Amino acid sequence: MIIKEKIAETYKIIQDEICRGLEVLDGSAIFEEELWDREGGGGGRTRIIQQGNILEKGGVNFSAVHGKLPEVIKKSFGVDEEDFFATGVSIVIHPNNPWVPIIHMNIRYFELNEQLRWFGGGIDLTPHYIVEEDARFFHHMLKNVCDKHHPTFYPEFKAWADRYFFIKHRNETRGIGGVFYDKLTPEKTGLTDVQIFDFSCDLGRTFVPTYTELVNRNREKTYTQHEKDWQLLRRGRYVEFNLVYDAGTRFGLETNGRIESILMSLPTQANWVYDYKPAPGSKEQKTLDLLKKDVDWINYEL
Amino acid sequence: MIIKEKIAETYKIIQDEICRGLEVLDGSAIFEEELWDREGGGGGRTRIIQQGNILEKGGVNFSAVHGKLPEVIKKSFGVDEEDFFATGVSIVIHPNNPWVPIIHMNIRYFELNEQLRWFGGGIDLTPHYIVEEDARFFHHMLKNVCDKHHPTFYPEFKAWADRYFFIKHRNETRGIGGVFYDKLTPEKTGLTDVQIFDFSCDLGRTFVPTYTELVNRNREKTYTQHEKDWQLLRRGRYVEFNLVYDAGTRFGLETNGRIESILMSLPTQANWVYDYKPAPGSKEQKTLDLLKKDVDWINYEL
Repeated sequence: MIIKEKIAETYKIIQDEICRGLEVLDGSAIFEEELWDREGGGGGRTRIIQQGNILEKGGVNFSAVHGKLPEVIKKSFGVDEEDFFATGVSIVIHPNNPWVPIIHMNIRYFELNEQLRWFGGGIDLTPHYIVEEDARFFHHMLKNVCDKHHPTFYPEFKAWADRYFFIKHRNETRGIGGVFYDKLTPEKTGLTDVQIFDFSCDLGRTFVPTYTELVNRNREKTYTQHEKDWQLLRRGRYVEFNLVYDAGTRFGLETNGRIESILMSLPTQANWVYDYKPAPGSKEQKTLDLLKKDVDWINYEL
Repeated sequence: MIIKEKIAETYKIIQDEICRGLEVLDGSAIFEEELWDREGGGGGRTRIIQQGNILEKGGVNFSAVHGKLPEVIKKSFGVDEEDFFATGVSIVIHPNNPWVPIIHMNIRYFELNEQLRWFGGGIDLTPHYIVEEDARFFHHMLKNVCDKHHPTFYPEFKAWADRYFFIKHRNETRGIGGVFYDKLTPEKTGLTDVQIFDFSCDLGRTFVPTYTELVNRNREKTYTQHEKDWQLLRRGRYVEFNLVYDAGTRFGLETNGRIESILMSLPTQANWVYDYKPAPGSKEQKTLDLLKKDVDWINYEL
């Protein structure tokens, strides 16, 4: 059986790899690191990159925390267990160029009283403008990783992402989805815990090549003020999703997590315009039309 | 006994008065109106002012809706009653100049099966920079209205606002508070329902003279980019409060309210900077130091 220290150590290495990869990609900015301790036990390494060539604001956070589970969380989990351990890597990247997509990745492991244990995570993409070839490429990369580990992972986790990354009050998805999974156990998957762990590491390690490709396809595109304004409105939607729905964010806010690490997911700037409606037939409207569940990006006809 | 039609009609008149008052104050922009119907019953008049001389974005909304109470709300209210009626006026104003404060006002009436009925509401002020004379003036205006109707209203509702307008994850109040009350009934107050209604109207009608004075005290102040940037960060906190905690916003999002009317409270632009800390001794730090509960603004020593 895998031990939690090994998981945390590997996730830490993945954080290192991803930060190096993103610095190379950006070519200008470098991460600043903040080490923090959690009062109840454990701590983390928050790493923030800002005002880069490509990356306007991004965070790549590692944490490994433990202690007694807060009442409110015990209730929501429906458990009586008290001692928890949680470790993971979390990423959100907001780029400068509206043609480069926002990306989010998370891999995490959770343990209760050293008995209940599960893995969670996912990657999802939020293009300001959906470029269909890129969406197909993104989902292909995720499907490749998933298929390597389990035949039903991609279809199940793709559908889960569609359900999870949904802005109910706008009746639109946050972006083009990706994969999302939670509470993965050997019982549910037929895999050993080592195999599930390996899957999570592979998913983590697909982040850099996937995002690098997406950035390189779009980084040289010029953009207008109109396109920049649209990006800022889409970031407003991102803020709405994260503050209203995102389980990780709300978990963090309710459990006195490290606020600045949790809210690093918010963009430098977000805008709201009352009742903004894109022109019919515009590329903004086309993107809105694609922000829905169950788009089959793998077989999408370009 | 007062009838709901009378309440709605009067609140509508108050909306008219406030819109006129704000147009005079701004001197440039005028409100645009959108009439809407609610699928389940009733509707509203959303009025938005944008890109004004003083007012960057503001909404003054009236609604009177009725129908069957959604399950989730019945649970949160702990009631079995089905038929509800709700009417109210809601205001949020975001000004251009960082020296002019953000203001919020709401008066509302709620009825269940024509048996349970109560009033709620409040006014609170969110200065980007706290000007102590203005904070004292603001609370004096509120105290005057409250004292006219009930000796314990101001102290009780002031404390209630401090508790309500609190950003728990930041451990700071949204602004300098004001008054907040909910579920006011004749039983609780010793007033008749007509008297409680009159109080709510008086509170609504104190909005224009109060905000006019606060604007006129500060509108000519020049400001730097640094001060503008601070305003944008404070607006970020406003967004956090509204999306994470505000009961009215969350009620609206959960009950399929008219999204654009609900989220008119969000500013045109809000910013986030990772782990921003004002310089020690700066006026930004001074404001932060005053964003706490239980400041006695009425007796505040200037």
